[in-house]
Amino acid sequence: MPAASVPDIVVGRLPLYLRALTQMAANGKEITSSQELGERLGISSAQIRKDLSQFGEFGKQGTGYNIGYLTDQLRRILKVDRVWDVVLVGVGDLGRAIAHYAGFVDRGYRVVAVFDNDPRKIGTTVGPFTVEDIALVQQQIRTRRVAVAMLAVPQAAAQAVTDTLVESGIRAILCYAPTSIQVPKDVHVQYIDPVLHMQRMTYYLP
Amino acid sequence: MPAASVPDIVVGRLPLYLRALTQMAANGKEITSSQELGERLGISSAQIRKDLSQFGEFGKQGTGYNIGYLTDQLRRILKVDRVWDVVLVGVGDLGRAIAHYAGFVDRGYRVVAVFDNDPRKIGTTVGPFTVEDIALVQQQIRTRRVAVAMLAVPQAAAQAVTDTLVESGIRAILCYAPTSIQVPKDVHVQYIDPVLHMQRMTYYLP
Repeated sequence: MPAASVPDIVVGRLPLYLRALTQMAANGKEITSSQELGERLGISSAQIRKDLSQFGEFGKQGTGYNIGYLTDQLRRILKVDRVWDVVLVGVGDLGRAIAHYAGFVDRGYRVVAVFDNDPRKIGTTVGPFTVEDIALVQQQIRTRRVAVAMLAVPQAAAQAVTDTLVESGIRAILCYAPTSIQVPKDVHVQYIDPVLHMQRMTYYLP
Repeated sequence: MPAASVPDIVVGRLPLYLRALTQMAANGKEITSSQELGERLGISSAQIRKDLSQFGEFGKQGTGYNIGYLTDQLRRILKVDRVWDVVLVGVGDLGRAIAHYAGFVDRGYRVVAVFDNDPRKIGTTVGPFTVEDIALVQQQIRTRRVAVAMLAVPQAAAQAVTDTLVESGIRAILCYAPTSIQVPKDVHVQYIDPVLHMQRMTYYLP
């Protein structure tokens, strides 16, 4: 599989396909087509066929895709045929919502520890977790060999926490802080900032 | 300004530029360069110059960009030189975090009303808001002429609420529900689903 040669924008669509297929399967569906997937996702069927063809032959012309099979293949390609341990740093309103969210584990991720630097929060309970001292995050990441982190700290703290996480072995950071963070080339960052998404939409509004 | 001809992927980077420039200005900086912006954002300086050139001439070769001027221009282009009213639907953990978040208004958006369909939540206070009955959302959207909505409802409710919002005049939806929603062509949707972002990263991990 020529993973290195697949454009990141294609990689970015695979999770959308997996999510839609998983929902179809949950509704008892067994077969779908690139047309049906495309209508559901607002992506052209040609694009979907082209994206999937970069990874192999998943369907036959005229018979469509077997949903169970394609789901398994996408899970394997996205490496969520396993469950990744995740640390969460920052227990403000958003971190609290993340800690309570039960929808990660079925999709390949499991929050295993939650950290903050606020003495009033350390030791308190958030969902199923006891908030731990950020001073312990490096040790925990190394002991548990965690590679993925969610960062829900204020903007001013984001870079310093990032540096600590990267030094401990984190290789993928989902950053909720509304700022850009600098990481080495072998560390992946994705950002979630609702304002970026809203600005991308209001650009088009009259 | 040839807005219609600018690729959406370029439009999607403008909010990143605006965010970085705003932070530079907050730190007292007055001039920057595409090189400096690029290092900060992990985007090539050539890409930044090319993106900005689609909208006009914002800097001179050798003297860089005036941060205040470029910020004003990007605000105008992204239409956040005004403040957009936003309705929030869904007051679970995530909706609650959004309602408490104070960082929208400086960046062009103001949550003006919060809705849920749960009788136990309607009438309760969330941050500065009293939760209103979802049955009132259409009337509120029309009266206040709201065009932007944030959707933080469960997956099963997402499409029905979307249909209601669109019918009332909403033209941009930020969807936190982990599912794809169908909208007419003149309605814009952006998705925030942390798992999609994490899968896009773990694809690359060993």
